Amino acid sequence: MAFPKTWSFVALSLAILGGVACAHHGRHGTNHDPAAVRAAIERSLAQFSADVLRGDATAAASVFAPDAEYFHAARTGFLVGRPSIEESFARLFKSVRFSESVITTRSVEVDGDTAYETGTNRFTSQAGDAPPVTRTGRYLTVWRRQPDGSWRIRVDAVMTDPSP
Amino acid sequence: MAFPKTWSFVALSLAILGGVACAHHGRHGTNHDPAAVRAAIERSLAQFSADVLRGDATAAASVFAPDAEYFHAARTGFLVGRPSIEESFARLFKSVRFSESVITTRSVEVDGDTAYETGTNRFTSQAGDAPPVTRTGRYLTVWRRQPDGSWRIRVDAVMTDPSP
Repeated sequence: MAFPKTWSFVALSLAILGGVACAHHGRHGTNHDPAAVRAAIERSLAQFSADVLRGDATAAASVFAPDAEYFHAARTGFLVGRPSIEESFARLFKSVRFSESVITTRSVEVDGDTAYETGTNRFTSQAGDAPPVTRTGRYLTVWRRQPDGSWRIRVDAVMTDPSP
Repeated sequence: MAFPKTWSFVALSLAILGGVACAHHGRHGTNHDPAAVRAAIERSLAQFSADVLRGDATAAASVFAPDAEYFHAARTGFLVGRPSIEESFARLFKSVRFSESVITTRSVEVDGDTAYETGTNRFTSQAGDAPPVTRTGRYLTVWRRQPDGSWRIRVDAVMTDPSP
């Protein structure tokens, strides 16, 4: 059995197109190395904690994607967009200063350009001359790979643990 | 220019393999129709609410994937695995009965076999002869497409709104 020339061309073109389509998919649709994504997330959270200790709302908000949504059990509603989140941090940092911010990743799963993370946190803050207050909490965070390759928070749900 | 027979075979095989690989990828790696995923999620949540009103812990837990994680601001820690979640619902349904369960999807984003949803909820429950209590809340839920094509909850972070 011999393939006609045209068939060979068609088959070869399909193979090349298939390869190109799959390679493209590989960049945008398949899993990134989960260990590398987790490391990037942990670096970003360490940087966020450093920004919180400095009381720098703009820097702290930069871990969020421009279209991020943020909500906290202690407040009502949803904050939408990085500017709203930054404004909320700015108000918070005006009223209290943080002497401890520890965010501990518990699990990370990666699917394509999305990663979701659970973890625990521990913050110590102080308003004026009041004694410092330490609170622990938990969170679920959805991270989204940005066009520049960085991973930023797309949705963040944060809760303070109930009083013991 | 003529392609030798072997080349034609190689090219044709690559084309077929490429097609198979991409079709496979299409099932597992590319985006499913977001409107269809949102509709499936809303149907599952309506079913969950019906199960809650009936006080059926096994049925209510079936919206969760076998490896689901669930945590609520009002309780400490993380529940891991559908059996733990079902047990928690069973305990809850023994202590209170629900006369209202309304879960309202606010946003859904789909990336591959993962979808993440935010929303609000409203539950009315009653313990014994105590007056019914209505509470509203918010949540972030990560859904994961299962091998059978259904979407089930992979991680669920639920919080009750603060008292006004």
